[in-house]
Parts: sequence; C-alpha cells; structure tokens
Amino acid sequence: MMTETMQALRDLQKKLYAFQFALNVIDFDAQTVAPSESYSGRGEALEVLSSIKYSLIADPALPALLEKARGEERTEQEAAEVAELQRMYDETSKIPAQEYAAFVKLTTAAVNAWEKAKAASDFSLFAPYLEQIVAYRRRTAAYFDANKAPYDVWLDQYEKGLSMAQCDAFFDQLKAVIQPLVKEIGQRGAKIPCDFLKGTWPIEAQKMLSAAVMKLMGIDERHCVLSESEHPFTTEFYKGDVRITTHYHEDDMASNLYSVIHEGGHALYELHMADRLQYTCLSGGASMGLHESQSRLCENYLGRSLGFIKSLWPTLTELFPTQLAGVTPEAFYKAVNQCQPSLIRTEADEVTYCLHVMVRYELEKRLMDGSLAVKDLPAAWNAQMKELLGVDVPDDAHGVLQDIHWACGDLGYFPSYALGTAYGAQMMASMRKDLDVDALLEAGNWAPITGWLEERIWQYGKEKTPAQLLKNACGGEFDPKFYTDYLVEKYFAIYEL
Amino acid sequence: MMTETMQALRDLQKKLYAFQFALNVIDFDAQTVAPSESYSGRGEALEVLSSIKYSLIADPALPALLEKARGEERTEQEAAEVAELQRMYDETSKIPAQEYAAFVKLTTAAVNAWEKAKAASDFSLFAPYLEQIVAYRRRTAAYFDANKAPYDVWLDQYEKGLSMAQCDAFFDQLKAVIQPLVKEIGQRGAKIPCDFLKGTWPIEAQKMLSAAVMKLMGIDERHCVLSESEHPFTTEFYKGDVRITTHYHEDDMASNLYSVIHEGGHALYELHMADRLQYTCLSGGASMGLHESQSRLCENYLGRSLGFIKSLWPTLTELFPTQLAGVTPEAFYKAVNQCQPSLIRTEADEVTYCLHVMVRYELEKRLMDGSLAVKDLPAAWNAQMKELLGVDVPDDAHGVLQDIHWACGDLGYFPSYALGTAYGAQMMASMRKDLDVDALLEAGNWAPITGWLEERIWQYGKEKTPAQLLKNACGGEFDPKFYTDYLVEKYFAIYEL
Repeated sequence: MMTETMQALRDLQKKLYAFQFALNVIDFDAQTVAPSESYSGRGEALEVLSSIKYSLIADPALPALLEKARGEERTEQEAAEVAELQRMYDETSKIPAQEYAAFVKLTTAAVNAWEKAKAASDFSLFAPYLEQIVAYRRRTAAYFDANKAPYDVWLDQYEKGLSMAQCDAFFDQLKAVIQPLVKEIGQRGAKIPCDFLKGTWPIEAQKMLSAAVMKLMGIDERHCVLSESEHPFTTEFYKGDVRITTHYHEDDMASNLYSVIHEGGHALYELHMADRLQYTCLSGGASMGLHESQSRLCENYLGRSLGFIKSLWPTLTELFPTQLAGVTPEAFYKAVNQCQPSLIRTEADEVTYCLHVMVRYELEKRLMDGSLAVKDLPAAWNAQMKELLGVDVPDDAHGVLQDIHWACGDLGYFPSYALGTAYGAQMMASMRKDLDVDALLEAGNWAPITGWLEERIWQYGKEKTPAQLLKNACGGEFDPKFYTDYLVEKYFAIYEL
Repeated sequence: MMTETMQALRDLQKKLYAFQFALNVIDFDAQTVAPSESYSGRGEALEVLSSIKYSLIADPALPALLEKARGEERTEQEAAEVAELQRMYDETSKIPAQEYAAFVKLTTAAVNAWEKAKAASDFSLFAPYLEQIVAYRRRTAAYFDANKAPYDVWLDQYEKGLSMAQCDAFFDQLKAVIQPLVKEIGQRGAKIPCDFLKGTWPIEAQKMLSAAVMKLMGIDERHCVLSESEHPFTTEFYKGDVRITTHYHEDDMASNLYSVIHEGGHALYELHMADRLQYTCLSGGASMGLHESQSRLCENYLGRSLGFIKSLWPTLTELFPTQLAGVTPEAFYKAVNQCQPSLIRTEADEVTYCLHVMVRYELEKRLMDGSLAVKDLPAAWNAQMKELLGVDVPDDAHGVLQDIHWACGDLGYFPSYALGTAYGAQMMASMRKDLDVDALLEAGNWAPITGWLEERIWQYGKEKTPAQLLKNACGGEFDPKFYTDYLVEKYFAIYEL
C-alpha cells in the first residue's frame, strides 16, 4: 500500500502529466497543422496553462510534503519520484513567478523574431531579443548558485554535473582527433561519387520508404505516427503516443531517410519506458544528452552502417529503380557517409558534426562570461566557423541564425548533442561485445539491438541518472575515446587512408 | 474602466477559454492524427483537465461574484457574460461532481463500445452502455427541473426553450409536406441521370476542389485549415484558428464537396465572431441549432443551387475533364439534388433529411419516458425507418448504430438538426429580399452573402439568443413554412411535378 503522502504526490504528478500532455499536443499541432496566423489565441491559452502548471510545481506547500514523504519512502521508484519532484521544485521556485512569466513571453517573441530574421538573413532583427535572453540567463543563474559561473549553472541544468572544465577537456579530446582526420580526408582529395543522391526522388516513394524504415526499426505504428514539419522533431504525449516528424525534399532523399531514423531513435526510447513510470515525473528521457545518444545512435551507428543499407536495399531499389540503377549498397553507404566541412549543423556528416557543436559552445561561453557582446556575435560566429571547419559563411541565415535554440532561451544545451553522440559510441562498443550487430542489421533484425537498449537504458526513464545508465550499458565511466576510435576506424576504411 | 468584479470574471473566462482550447486541440488531434492505440493516456489527461475545468465553473464562490457583478453591470456585453456564466454555473453545479465525472467516464467507454459495435454491426455490444446513459439522463433531469418530463429538460438544454410540444408541432408541419412530396417524386418514377457521379475521382483533384471551394466561400486559409477524418467535423480553437475536416472517397466526389461546404459554413460562423467576444464565454455559436442553420444553409441553400454549380463549373471541368465530359451544370445540379429515401442520415437529400431526424426524435421520446427499452431499440428503429422513409434496414450498422450522438450521451440533440435546417430556410427568404442571391452565387461573389450573415448573426456569438438572432435576420418569429415552401418549390421544379 502506498502512503497517503505518496498518493498525494502521485496525484500531483498526474496533474503535471495532464498539463504537459496538453502543452505538447498544442505545440505539436502548431508545428504540423495549425494555420499560419493562429498564434495569438494559442499564445493566450499557453500562458494560462503554463502558469497553472508553474503554480502546481512551485507550490509553497510542496517542500513539506516532500520532506514528509522522505520519512516514509518505501520503493526505489518512490524515492526517485520524490527526488525528481524536489529537483523540479527547486529549479522552478528559485525563479520568481513574475520573472519566469516575463521570460516565457520574451522567448515567444524571440522565436517569432528569429523566424523573420532567418528568412531575411538579418541578424539585427533578432539581436535585441537575444540580448535580453543572454542578460536573463546571466542574471538568473545566481538564483541557483551565486558562486558558480553562470554558464556552469546552465550546463548543469541541461546535463547534471556538466561544467565548462569537463566540456573543455571533452572537446579538446575530440578536436585532437577530428581536426587531423578532416584534414587528412581533405588532403587525399578522394572524392566519393555521390552525384546520384542529387536526382529526383518522388515524395510518394519517399513516404513509403519512411514507413518501411519505421517498420524495420520496430516502431509500433499503433503508438507512433509520422507527421511533417519544417524541422523534424519528436514529442511524446505519453509512452503510448509518441509523434515524430520529417520533411520531404524531392531533390534529397537522404534528408528524410536519416531524419526518420534519428527521430525514430528518440521515439523508441520514449515508447519503451517501463509501464510503472507512466504518469509520474520519471517518465521521459534521463537527460537531453541521453536522448540524443539514442537518436544519433540509431541515425549514425545503425542507420549509416553498411549492414543496414544492405537490409534496406531491396526496398530502396524497388521504390527508386531508376535513381539507383547501377548503384551498389557499398556505393550508397559511402555516399551517405561522405565527409565534407559544411555550413549547417543538422546536415553535417559524422566527422564534422561535433565541430559545429564546438563553434556554439565557444560562443556561448563568451556570451555568458560577458567577453562577447551580442552585436559582435555574427562576426565571431564566422570566425569560429573558419577556424574550426575552414568554411566561409556567406550570410547569417547559413550562419549564426541557423538554429532555433538561442531564441528559445537555451544556452548550454548544444554541448549535449556532442555528449550524446559520444555516449552512443560507447554504448555501441559495449553492445558489440554481446551482439553481432552488423549481422543483425544486415538481416534486418533490429529486435535484439533495441531489446539490448531497452533493458539497459530505455525502461528506466529518469529513474536513474545518465551516469548510472551509462554504467548500466557500458560497465564503466564515460570515455570519449570510444567515439574518436569509432570515427577513425570508420573513416579510415571509407577513405582508404 | 471595468470593475474589479468584472475583471475577476474576465480572468475566469480566460481560464475557461484556455482549458477549452486544450480540450479541443486534444480532441481534434485524436480524430485526425493520433495513432490508433493511444487512448489510455489521452483519457487520463482529459479526465484531469476536464475536472479542473469543471471545478472552475462549479466554484461555490462564483454565484456571489456574479450577484455582485449584476449590481455593477455596465455594458450589454458584460451583462450577457454574467448571464451566460450564471447559466453555465447552474447547468454544471446542479449535477454533483462525482456523478458528472462518472458520466464522462461512461460516455468515453460508450464511444469506444459504439465504435466496436458499429464495426461488428452488433447492437448488443453497445446496449449495456446506452442503458446506463439513458438511465443517467432520465435520473439527472430532475436536478434541473423535477416537474418537467426528462426529455423536455434535455431539449431545452440543447436549444433554449425547446419542448416536446413544440417539436411535435414542428415535425407534424414538416411531415404534412415532406411525406406527400417524397411520395409524389417516387410515383413519378422520374429518374434523374446521376450515374456519372459514380465514376472515379482522383483524390488529388478532389483536394484541389476542396481548396477552390474554400477560397470561393471566402474562408481565410491563414485562420482555417482543412484536415481529414473519418467523419467530417468542425472545431474552433478561437476565432483566429478554426479547423474543418473532410473525408475523401475515390468513388464519390459529392461527399467531399458537400462536406467541405457544410463544415465551411460552421467555420465561417466561428471565424466571424466579433473581436470583443474573444476569450469570453460569449464566443461560439448561439446554439447547436443556430450553428447547424449556418452549415446547412451553406451546404444546401447555397451549395446545392444551380448558381453555385455554374460558378464552380470551370474548376470542376478542369479538374475532372473526363468524368464530366458531356455533363452540363444543370445535369450536375439535378444529380446532386436527387431525392431518394435512404438509410444514412448524413447522406440524405434535402427532402428526406428531416425524416431521418424524426426517426431519432420519436425513439428518444420513448426512451426518455420509459415506454421503450434499450434492448428493443433496433426493432423500433427499423419500424420507424419503414414507417417514415419506407426503407428496410439491413443491419444495425446501417441502422440504429450509424450515429455517434447517443454514445456521447446526447439525447435531445437531433431535433436541432431539423430546426437549424428550417432556420436557414427562413434566413434565406429574408436574405433574398435584400440580395440577388442567385446572381451573386453564379458570379462566385459570396462576399455580400457572408457579409449579410455576419452582420445579422455571426458577429454576436452567444451575446444574443437564437430567437433574437432569428429576428435580427428575418424580422419575425420562427416559421417552418419557409422551409417547406422552399422544398416544394425547388423539388417541383427539379422533378417537373
């Protein structure tokens, strides 16, 4: 039997679930279906619902209830629920309600301004908003820990325990391998034939490919459907209803293919939370880095493997017989793994991807310590891109304005993309000790792979920390070397270095 | 300046708006996009959100606030808001919270059972739920007025002031004209050629037709989009975001065409509420009957007119050149107006439509006064269909199980369909005094027509009663003779009687 206190906390969690459900449905609808000029009424509704949700978790009576629950705790899960609710309370209640509401309004306006600025490729339209966002983040960090550097506060919020010191070391380790690798690939000038990827790929056939890929991955269509949006994303309403989106471009089939696999990875994680976590605050990915580890693991370590492409080949050649005439699975594999420094993070290959993240990390660090003014950000962006990737940025739309994150108020979020990528490589190395991954992929048999991940990671939601989950899956501490080793081995083979 | 009391009531209305927004988005998503097995988590969220919304309106402190507001009232709109909030409070608070919550759960389960029963064409799967629904409706009517017959209580809830006495008189008046008319058309045996409607109509072309029709009607795509669902419907999130749905059948283009015009009529109503009513309880159609009057007015009185078909003819023949080869607008007009007693209400022609409503009305009356048991309903349905329409019902799916309404708990709702249809005819007669409707339709010029309706009806939302709005539009009391006259004139011409 559950104690009365714990029952009260379960009721609260159910309420929080219901509000989050509503907020997620409204957001999903806005990004996939809503008419173009429907913001104002949605904004009014969101403001009311968000503020009620805020008051539920920032309830002054909650700490006493949590304290009482700690004296009564019984199961490991109940303890984790109490700890997570305490964390949510601390995080939410530390920022005064007024300031929080003002920030929600600010970011809403900022996203709107960012969209216009990106369309016009004019950073100045967005700069006034970003200035306020940076100021807010610098100021409010002190509510959490006045003795910490603001950026350390926010890194820790996105990925528990993360700091600039750790990021610096992590990124240095990556840079030491990736930059020489990119250089070597470039110097060899070995061009991989990938002109065939350019052709024309009918949207209807691409849609059939999406369905086939989801089936292959074992995504249950009774609980997960694919929609379309400008930027692909995943949102979970609950473990029985997860939505993923993609975008279709007639001249680029790989973009949809790898969007579906990436978002499909996020979806598989959410679809496999343990039933017992449903409607509690423990449902959902353990951290942003952990979530990204699963999506990038599916997209890259599984989806960009030769075995997977071989298993998909009958479908691909049936759907695109002329486009793939004379192309072999091996040639396709090399083409979708081409390494080429480029401008846009979300389209970057596996080797250069983390360099894009580092550009953002370096700039965020300087914005947060006050050494870089928002007005100087475009020039600093372009300089970083030149330094780390060796590319010239032609305009703000293809540069500093490409990502939505800063407009949403997220400063400190980007490093988790690189972290997740590296987590995933370490998990794969561990999985390979237990399973013949390549043979399974080639046979189109994903079940043992997803079962391995479900057992070690997915089922736990937020019940375990990212570090515990990583240990669960890999038997040790986080080590980025698995990732750099993977890159070197894969790309030496592809480019015959 | 608004008084403090009125400001508090506005805050409450904004909250109610936000919850209704969330509930509507969730419902719309469920009917258009959600994966098939995603009910349970949605049900949990809906239960929480509905019950919070219930407690907002059934708040014991509300009557005193409303009383205070009545002493302070200033504008006509504020008075209407107070009256509507009082009505909502009375309606909601009369049913004990526990009983209300149990009924929400019951109808949720009933809809689920109804879907399965309909698919299996087996009434017995649905009967136990309907028995509980009927019992609940019979029992709880007494909370509203213990001296009234339960069915009178519910008729009045759906359409203020409506009673069995009025319905009996109304339906008798319709029957006296419609039954002989149907008989005469049948006896003449004059078959209208409509085989061409059967052909094959590519879905993509039908989608383009939908867009063209919405444009013609003046539906602003920046505020209203068309989605797909099994049963077409309209839902409004707010006046800046209205959703309509349709369904596409390759062998039936008229079904989509008239669904879009019907739902488009509902949408136009919602899109043209006055701005000042936004986020108040006065936003939304004045009654179910009024709403249906606008959709059926658009569908039938405008959409099934020769003028409209002529204006759409260039689009129709461009999209369907082979299907409509050799067909004239006049032939098309007659084909989409063919009168033929049939099994399904939503597909009925204008003449027989109200007979379908009468079948339901007669049965509801008997269910509510206890003279008909739920178990005997299928036989009674089939007998009524034979008596009123002269058709033999082959199975429950095409009979008693065809509509969702009873599963939703709605008993007393159907008469408003007939009422709305008759309201619309009276409005058209009035409009024709001011405008050359046929010429405008033929010219594809809907703006004066929609402007006429906006000025007299749409802008007011619930600020005026249905009777006031009808008087506003028609200058007199409701009179069903406008409707029967319309039918006789139109159908005598089509069938050359």
